[in-house]
Amino acid sequence: MNAEFDSGVVIQERNRYRVPVTFRETERTRHRRLREQGSLNRADLDAILTAGFVCHLGVVIDGCPMVVPTVYGVAPGGDVVFFHGSVASRSLVQSPTATVCLTVTHVDGLVLARSVFEHGVNYRSAMIYGTPRLITDPEEKLAGLRQLTEHIAAGQWDYARQPNRRELAATALLALDVAEASVKIRTGPPDDGDGPDAGLPVWAGVRPLRTVWGELEPDPSLAPGIDVPDHLR
Amino acid sequence: MNAEFDSGVVIQERNRYRVPVTFRETERTRHRRLREQGSLNRADLDAILTAGFVCHLGVVIDGCPMVVPTVYGVAPGGDVVFFHGSVASRSLVQSPTATVCLTVTHVDGLVLARSVFEHGVNYRSAMIYGTPRLITDPEEKLAGLRQLTEHIAAGQWDYARQPNRRELAATALLALDVAEASVKIRTGPPDDGDGPDAGLPVWAGVRPLRTVWGELEPDPSLAPGIDVPDHLR
Repeated sequence: MNAEFDSGVVIQERNRYRVPVTFRETERTRHRRLREQGSLNRADLDAILTAGFVCHLGVVIDGCPMVVPTVYGVAPGGDVVFFHGSVASRSLVQSPTATVCLTVTHVDGLVLARSVFEHGVNYRSAMIYGTPRLITDPEEKLAGLRQLTEHIAAGQWDYARQPNRRELAATALLALDVAEASVKIRTGPPDDGDGPDAGLPVWAGVRPLRTVWGELEPDPSLAPGIDVPDHLR
Repeated sequence: MNAEFDSGVVIQERNRYRVPVTFRETERTRHRRLREQGSLNRADLDAILTAGFVCHLGVVIDGCPMVVPTVYGVAPGGDVVFFHGSVASRSLVQSPTATVCLTVTHVDGLVLARSVFEHGVNYRSAMIYGTPRLITDPEEKLAGLRQLTEHIAAGQWDYARQPNRRELAATALLALDVAEASVKIRTGPPDDGDGPDAGLPVWAGVRPLRTVWGELEPDPSLAPGIDVPDHLR
């Protein structure tokens, strides 16, 4: 099994370096290995951010890394990623003062190659580096929370009860610029079909992995007569 | 939308503090907020590790956090998590010299509450802290890689071609003790059904999210006559 979702020619992505480069490469985001999996295409980054709602936020606390799963939101084509948390949260209170790494990953399948070494994962992943900004302006905060909520569950902001003053005060909202990012994508079959292992009598291919929504489960304490609203159907 | 997958009574988990405590709490892993979502039950930790094969590895590079998705493996009930990578990888070369945070997260659904503030996520998450050990002994390395591979795709180690000397030399294998961990779990419906929002005419419940395997996709260059082996069916 290869490194960091390693290995393999990215079949559908071979020409990615010919598309316009729309975000900059830095010392941190430069793809050192497996360059064929790297993308500098802003559309790839946007698609990865749009497809998910949970990220892994990396912060440094007392010199040690801490990786916290948390929800995020982006406006379509937007320049910032919003995330939030309790004002009492360690990872959030410290994050506006230093660089964070916000990583979004979609796992699309297991790459079953003819050799163990060429095994790998089909995936789409974006890492965004930056120093988040704590949003304190009340109107900006409300607009940001709306965007975050609409990203995760479109229609719910106007449908559910909106935050009151106490709830707003208890919530820290942060915005991270989508400026310094590293995008990696692997798709397609294993990469040993044209190598010396091609002749081995070993089955090879991909076991796809999909994330699917299930049927809505009503709250057992839901009062009778309240229908599922259209935007959730 | 609440903080860090926030809020809500963990319906099925109320009695978790009564089960035997089998891993220690430290300053880093102590659950400061939402204690009802915290678990010190080793069986919960094992179940989370067993259910996945992709983690987010947090390391500190030049003082900045870096969160890299990577595959991992555990033996059932084992005391270490294995992960690996290219010997050329920055995140791996530095990680045996310092603390890492290895986080595994399963997202189980969106919690649609009557208020935006009580919205949240059903999830299971484990964060493991420690300084990984680089495995250099050849036999131990081979056994560890076998365990890693079998965790991700059981049966493939004995079926596919095993690593040769060159491939083994190019792979760094690391073992992280499962000793200092933080486990958080949220399940069940939203938490506003018994609060002041209970009377709002707003639909509430859970939209479940499931990760499912798809049908195997054979490598287009697969030679004719090679059947799918039983362990992959």
